[in-house]
Amino acid sequence: MTRLLGLDPGLRFTGWGVIDAIGNRLRHVADGVIATDGELPVPDRLRVLHDALVGLFSTYAPEEAAVEETYVNRNGSSTLKLGYARGVALLAPALHDIPVSEYGAMAVKRAVVGTGAATKEQVEMMVRRLLPGAVIRRADASDALAVAICHAHHRTSALKVATGTRMA
Amino acid sequence: MTRLLGLDPGLRFTGWGVIDAIGNRLRHVADGVIATDGELPVPDRLRVLHDALVGLFSTYAPEEAAVEETYVNRNGSSTLKLGYARGVALLAPALHDIPVSEYGAMAVKRAVVGTGAATKEQVEMMVRRLLPGAVIRRADASDALAVAICHAHHRTSALKVATGTRMA
Repeated sequence: MTRLLGLDPGLRFTGWGVIDAIGNRLRHVADGVIATDGELPVPDRLRVLHDALVGLFSTYAPEEAAVEETYVNRNGSSTLKLGYARGVALLAPALHDIPVSEYGAMAVKRAVVGTGAATKEQVEMMVRRLLPGAVIRRADASDALAVAICHAHHRTSALKVATGTRMA
Repeated sequence: MTRLLGLDPGLRFTGWGVIDAIGNRLRHVADGVIATDGELPVPDRLRVLHDALVGLFSTYAPEEAAVEETYVNRNGSSTLKLGYARGVALLAPALHDIPVSEYGAMAVKRAVVGTGAATKEQVEMMVRRLLPGAVIRRADASDALAVAICHAHHRTSALKVATGTRMA
């Protein structure tokens, strides 16, 4: 069994989801959203995010982390703010000696729905289907669980390839 | 006396400079550059930066911090990377309950040279003149000291204004 943390970082909302990968099976553990108050100065908001992430590591002790690669939009100022949140989200696993993998939106859709052209609604529906029993209230949390599921699939494929190579 | 930390953040090189503001006088304390290995994964580079910043706080115990506002360029991917470094640089003072001020490049030039149209060379020369005895080896460190000087000037002006208001 390996415990995985998926993150969908943003300065306003950072979605997170924890799942267990047991062989080919997946089990939902917990999910949620870290929100920071837009009225606070940016450094204080980053601290709120950092402290909450550190809290997740001590509560759930994930062994691997996965972050969705960020869509870089045309607006330099919002890209920079996304960078702040993403930098803090990438720092937290590194401080806990946890490897972080990054996956593009297409890879996540392909892993969860089977096609890179899937809609947001299809991804949400498949996340619920793949993680029975999970009550997911927020889209950001669903996105974070989708990244964790994507990482679980890639880990398994990587193991299969490694086994195949060893057996050849 | 107030100890000030200036930061010029970047993923590859983050300049830093520590000065003491004693009334209207400035004293150079230390400066340097935090470099991260471009061959390492980004989360590990952010950890190197974070750990070094935490080290500066425990070594020099600055009471206030100042960061230069970042030039947002057209390339979304480099803006995002700059955001990672800047996010980690803004986080460190917040974790130490230290207020962080941000200054644009024009404000820094005006505070150090007297004109927002100053060249990089003029800024470097004035940083050396304003901080006699400082041996500054790197441009990034000089930029960080310039931000710290800018913050020292704005603090004093703010105090003057406050005093004026009180006396009126």
